[in-house]
Amino acid sequence: MPFVDNIGFLMSRASGQLVRATNAALAEHGLRVRQYSVLSVVCESATGESQRDLAEVLALDPSQVVALVDDLVRAGLVERRPSPADRRTKLVVPTASGRTVRQQAATGAEARLAAALEPLDADERALLRTMLTKLVFVPV
Amino acid sequence: MPFVDNIGFLMSRASGQLVRATNAALAEHGLRVRQYSVLSVVCESATGESQRDLAEVLALDPSQVVALVDDLVRAGLVERRPSPADRRTKLVVPTASGRTVRQQAATGAEARLAAALEPLDADERALLRTMLTKLVFVPV
Repeated sequence: MPFVDNIGFLMSRASGQLVRATNAALAEHGLRVRQYSVLSVVCESATGESQRDLAEVLALDPSQVVALVDDLVRAGLVERRPSPADRRTKLVVPTASGRTVRQQAATGAEARLAAALEPLDADERALLRTMLTKLVFVPV
Repeated sequence: MPFVDNIGFLMSRASGQLVRATNAALAEHGLRVRQYSVLSVVCESATGESQRDLAEVLALDPSQVVALVDDLVRAGLVERRPSPADRRTKLVVPTASGRTVRQQAATGAEARLAAALEPLDADERALLRTMLTKLVFVPV
């Protein structure tokens, strides 16, 4: 099989296209996709998330998460607060501005992502999500 | 839908896993996945490939391709030769050593990729390839 039909190569290209489409939508909100991923997860959390949990949920290195949270703190979109359960642990929580920006950014990002996925019909998208989930969440 | 079920996020994670698996197999041959992609395409070509064509086929920036070809030239795996059709165009062609290394690297890389795709059965892999191809080769 020619290299260009290699499933790893096709996955990289498709992933790159989705990331570029999402970044294009996020740019007007001053965000890139990894910052947006951190902001999204903390906005969905009832209590805030520790940086360690963010790293695990997003499959990022802890040092990357610290840098992304720093970016979001500087932009006024999140804060680090001591956990009520354990004051040595800091939780990352969204600010009011962070929640607003995230909501606006999500609308644009989801529309651009849907456009990039246009070649697939609704059944295929659902199947693609199921298969990617199987690949990503392999019991170790 | 929670952010972690976002199809763009899942695609990035799955793609990252496949790239890491492939890089792990390629490391013992002194290659990384993008160098390997260039080496593979020129080994499959009857005549060699111009850097411009490599950029197009691999969806990379021309400047990235130049750097990758430089890496492979330094490692003695490819050469730049004037095109017989137009001596102003340089074609990238594999050396004998390049063909050998590529064949050995492909065996390891394909085995690691297959292992990373283990959670999907043969039908699902075929379907995944078809869907990724649809996403990547969108008529513009």
